[in-house]
Amino acid sequence: MPVLKRKPCVAIVGAGPGDPGLITVKALELVRRCQVLVYDRLVSDELCAEAVHAFRVARDGLTQERVNELLVRQGRRGRRVVRLKGGDPFVFGRGAEEIEALEAAGVPYEVVPGVSTLTALPGLAGIPLTTRGVADQVTVVSGTRADGGDLDFDRLATTPGTLVVFMGLHRLDRIAAGLIAAGRPRHERAAVASQLSLPGYELRTGTLETIAGLAEDMPTPALVVIGDVVGLPARPQALRSASGD
Amino acid sequence: MPVLKRKPCVAIVGAGPGDPGLITVKALELVRRCQVLVYDRLVSDELCAEAVHAFRVARDGLTQERVNELLVRQGRRGRRVVRLKGGDPFVFGRGAEEIEALEAAGVPYEVVPGVSTLTALPGLAGIPLTTRGVADQVTVVSGTRADGGDLDFDRLATTPGTLVVFMGLHRLDRIAAGLIAAGRPRHERAAVASQLSLPGYELRTGTLETIAGLAEDMPTPALVVIGDVVGLPARPQALRSASGD
Repeated sequence: MPVLKRKPCVAIVGAGPGDPGLITVKALELVRRCQVLVYDRLVSDELCAEAVHAFRVARDGLTQERVNELLVRQGRRGRRVVRLKGGDPFVFGRGAEEIEALEAAGVPYEVVPGVSTLTALPGLAGIPLTTRGVADQVTVVSGTRADGGDLDFDRLATTPGTLVVFMGLHRLDRIAAGLIAAGRPRHERAAVASQLSLPGYELRTGTLETIAGLAEDMPTPALVVIGDVVGLPARPQALRSASGD
Repeated sequence: MPVLKRKPCVAIVGAGPGDPGLITVKALELVRRCQVLVYDRLVSDELCAEAVHAFRVARDGLTQERVNELLVRQGRRGRRVVRLKGGDPFVFGRGAEEIEALEAAGVPYEVVPGVSTLTALPGLAGIPLTTRGVADQVTVVSGTRADGGDLDFDRLATTPGTLVVFMGLHRLDRIAAGLIAAGRPRHERAAVASQLSLPGYELRTGTLETIAGLAEDMPTPALVVIGDVVGLPARPQALRSASGD
């Protein structure tokens, strides 16, 4: 996969979690200079408005195939195209499918990574993904599987550390029940962070047993976090002396 | 953990993976306005130079305790302090320890997340962390444990999907051997991405058996990736028809 070709026509760009200030400097420059902007529903109006010279296309309502065709067609014409995606293009973001289409068509492209909601979670929601002595490992899954099936609850029930579920809010009752049935403790801490970094941001915390009910009416996008790191202070008192440097 | 207080004195800021263009717009503004800059070894000179008004302190050589003290002391004086960290402050970045010190001292702070090397990996190194039908799950661990011990090889050997190891290059021989001994296939694909997004960027790919030898002389920072997603084209041909939209 080539990176930063000299004269890229199509840029696959991460917009960050929502707050327009969390786009990267490079991405903002590309948006300002582009001729065609194809943007996700989750991208803020403020960022889209920066594309002052661009023909703007909302991705919402287009199939992935149509998006791919659009990028290829405009790229072939030598237009400066920005495909602006919420969060990061590759964290369950299907950026790879767009790149595949561009490569197959021989259209040059570049990739500009963004701040993922995954990595924004600790700083903005106060939930450390890992904390020395509490969770040494993070497991990230999509709650919406390609085949429509359930997650592998048996395996996830015995996976140590923190579990983060993308796109799982709409079936959180099923996910939580499945994990409990497979042996994960019903009183394990769980949280849902909705609209992270946006004005509508909200965090609700509970247990694996209560979280689906607590989060029922929360809007997407939302991340589900399960594990002892939820509700921790920044770092547990008892571990201070063990950290060294 | 409070977020974006109105008059923050100390900002814990992610600088991104290395390329100065991958800092966020908000973070760059804070750097430009700050009075004290405390920066990691991995932060580029170009970014540090943006702090034109600041007293600059290299974090290298200071213990974590000294860094915490410095942030608290300058924050108490009402200075605009930026603690600029490579990647994202909280992906194995010990940002939580600094926040704990600031909270304990009652010093207001804010957090600005950055592009993590983890999320930069797919776009910049061409390794999708997940791909429909190949890997539905990503597990992230630190190769350097707080207690100096080994990773839980038995469990990681049976963890499905992609395995990403931060800070594991210097003991990659031990990690690879441990995973193989615990039953992970010796011919499983593995890669090391060194200096991601920087001019010295290099990617080497091999198998679990060969990767430690192949990557021996690579400089840090480096990410180790293990799983079938390594060496994949953007998306395997055979899966196209199964994706839907």
